[in-house]
Amino acid sequence: MDRITPRTLSGFMELLPAKQAKLEKMMRILRDTYSLYGFAALDTPVIEDAKILLAKGGGETEKQIYRFQKGDSDLALRFDLTVPLAKYVALHYNDLSFPFRRYQIGKVYRGERAQRGRFREFYQADIDIIGDGKLDIANEAEIPAIIYRVFRGFGLTRFQIRVNNRKILNGFYAMQGLSEKSGDIMRTVDKLDKIGPEKVLKILVEDCGLSAEQGEEILRFIAITGSNDQVLTALETYAGRNEVFDLGLEELKAVTRNLSAFGVPEENFAVDLTIARGLDYYTGTVYETTLLDHPEIGSVCSGGRYDNLAEFYTDKPLPGVGISIGLTRLFYVLDEQGLLNDNLSGAPCDALVLPMTPELRHSVALAEALRSAGVRTQLYSEQKKFKQKMSYADKLGVPYVVLLGEDEIAEGVCSVKNMVSGEQVKCTPAQAAEHILNGLKNSDGPLILEK
Amino acid sequence: MDRITPRTLSGFMELLPAKQAKLEKMMRILRDTYSLYGFAALDTPVIEDAKILLAKGGGETEKQIYRFQKGDSDLALRFDLTVPLAKYVALHYNDLSFPFRRYQIGKVYRGERAQRGRFREFYQADIDIIGDGKLDIANEAEIPAIIYRVFRGFGLTRFQIRVNNRKILNGFYAMQGLSEKSGDIMRTVDKLDKIGPEKVLKILVEDCGLSAEQGEEILRFIAITGSNDQVLTALETYAGRNEVFDLGLEELKAVTRNLSAFGVPEENFAVDLTIARGLDYYTGTVYETTLLDHPEIGSVCSGGRYDNLAEFYTDKPLPGVGISIGLTRLFYVLDEQGLLNDNLSGAPCDALVLPMTPELRHSVALAEALRSAGVRTQLYSEQKKFKQKMSYADKLGVPYVVLLGEDEIAEGVCSVKNMVSGEQVKCTPAQAAEHILNGLKNSDGPLILEK
Repeated sequence: MDRITPRTLSGFMELLPAKQAKLEKMMRILRDTYSLYGFAALDTPVIEDAKILLAKGGGETEKQIYRFQKGDSDLALRFDLTVPLAKYVALHYNDLSFPFRRYQIGKVYRGERAQRGRFREFYQADIDIIGDGKLDIANEAEIPAIIYRVFRGFGLTRFQIRVNNRKILNGFYAMQGLSEKSGDIMRTVDKLDKIGPEKVLKILVEDCGLSAEQGEEILRFIAITGSNDQVLTALETYAGRNEVFDLGLEELKAVTRNLSAFGVPEENFAVDLTIARGLDYYTGTVYETTLLDHPEIGSVCSGGRYDNLAEFYTDKPLPGVGISIGLTRLFYVLDEQGLLNDNLSGAPCDALVLPMTPELRHSVALAEALRSAGVRTQLYSEQKKFKQKMSYADKLGVPYVVLLGEDEIAEGVCSVKNMVSGEQVKCTPAQAAEHILNGLKNSDGPLILEK
Repeated sequence: MDRITPRTLSGFMELLPAKQAKLEKMMRILRDTYSLYGFAALDTPVIEDAKILLAKGGGETEKQIYRFQKGDSDLALRFDLTVPLAKYVALHYNDLSFPFRRYQIGKVYRGERAQRGRFREFYQADIDIIGDGKLDIANEAEIPAIIYRVFRGFGLTRFQIRVNNRKILNGFYAMQGLSEKSGDIMRTVDKLDKIGPEKVLKILVEDCGLSAEQGEEILRFIAITGSNDQVLTALETYAGRNEVFDLGLEELKAVTRNLSAFGVPEENFAVDLTIARGLDYYTGTVYETTLLDHPEIGSVCSGGRYDNLAEFYTDKPLPGVGISIGLTRLFYVLDEQGLLNDNLSGAPCDALVLPMTPELRHSVALAEALRSAGVRTQLYSEQKKFKQKMSYADKLGVPYVVLLGEDEIAEGVCSVKNMVSGEQVKCTPAQAAEHILNGLKNSDGPLILEK
């Protein structure tokens, strides 16, 4: 037979089981946390009418999209979860209750040039809150609490949620008479971390056509740092000169005001005037999240407030706020940085039952008893030597092996061996389940271990 | 602005939130049950090299597949989860431990003619156990236990797992000197439920070229029914005349022997000699699962034993056994039949906190306290009239509303209203969480309610 060499396409993540178990755990934390804040799970098709996905049209998106014909249909794979959400809300508008809060964790597709750490198929994990005509600022204030709980759920403590407001930036540029150039200026300022203030000033003056004074004024403005109170106090000195600025400042205060009631510690949060987010889409609060010990990774959770989710599909104004986690990339980076907790078992089961008799009836009943008590149990039924069976358990990284021989069957017990400590106890199946579940509780740790 | 009418492609399931919540629950039951039996979660790409997906080639598959070019690459969307598993095991052979047990719940794509209840994008929920060269029959015996636990987990009791063995059929046909016609015969016999024995006999004689005696012998054979013991006893009368038959009978006995130890009641299981499964792929035990009150749906969980998972990618013999649930179709059918439990809340949250004061700090803290106790909580922060807020809670189907006004704040309590009974209690946030969680426990029911 002519065989085909198996391969997985480059840019597509395919994990071995132990690593997949950790990604699954990350997804479970995301689902549970998003649910805890009352977001409804949503699942939209991976394939959509190309005309609908490209309603906004143009740019990089169009080049990267996977688009193809099937019969008469012009189809495309979704490249994010926001456009399908816009379609969904416009399409099902009459059946939804607003504010509509949804989360979606799903694969999206971008035919980017393949390179290390870049994926063509990757998970995004998004939440959005959509209002019908209006959406209270309090929703924007809640977002940092959700980000905080997600990242703490992963086991991280060394992260910072950075917040700014586009109205503050737009208002400030308007004060300087630079409204028309604000897009160029924000894109330049966005590079501050990468190229430093001097080069930013150079670009502002030479490429954007600002005067040196204007450029320096902007650098002074975005250099405002300190505690939330310090930044807000400094911003007050600009108040009363531009309505948009004042509105942005009010919104920023509303977002920071209840942080402690939301349980977000001051050290995990910062007002950061350099954040603008590339997209023109955002109109108010914007968010980025960075790992303090890995600034080179950039933002791992970003988003913001927008005024019109679905303007390409409906004339209904649908303002919203949302964030997105690039899950596949985040997982890849955490793994690369060695931050995934190696002590956490990636084994597919908690206990491996090893029958020591040819007749399996008792081992089957034992395995079922453990399962009914909640122990993830595999019954090993291959005809192999004891040493090979133990070696299988070792390779899988199974935390407990449960042995059942003639003696145990006669006594109505089984032998439970802790594969880490080597400790072995004889007990009834019910006690074995309790023993294993207790042991697992003690050895369960966070998904991510900071060094 | 030119607007595009939003639509979702036909043949693609897109659910409203309350229904999606039920599908999510079904997926959670599947994940949990598969995990309980020690299956590792796996996630392979939706897009693969077309050459790899079509290694087997030919037939309906090739016509239905979504295939397209991107750059120089000839790509295709997976049409099942078995071919990607074969690729995965062949590719990662050296990194896997055998028996390798994996589950995968993922979307697959088939460009079938769109019709009611047929989907072009649908979830499959598969498990497979793959051996390296050999795989003990005990693995096949475990499969009915897993199917049983899954369907009981859904809330079903009126279902039957039907089992047969291809070796019994092949051996029987060999006894009749009909080995070469066994494929045609099995395909004909497979129609028994639909067209009845007379028409089957007619086709066997007229189209397959059997004598009337041969046809009647086959009908007599597949008419063997009764309890497991009765069927096995009847089969014994054919024993000793063909090695393949005898081997199949031994395997069937092994599969049925430990059923009670596996916890599968006799009424949910039947040996059924009419089951052959269309695919040539299966070589031993085959499974189908039917809903007793809805035979018209056909099998909702099928699979079997195969000898060579990955023959197109590797010369390593990789025997296995697996089953697949067509989740999207099953969900669609359960919904159509009105079997989804309407009493089960599809609300995205358990509690909706309604602040009755302009200042939100206390409501925020209350919502966070409920969340920390495990109550899925939405803070309603829109500036609306009380009646509109309650109407939002009603529309979402939220089981509890938690009110917080000046009086409650002063007393350090909140008012919890059960939206079903109308009962309202005043208590501390900690008591509120307990009250809600207890209430939810009592109102939680099975996903499926049989009529």
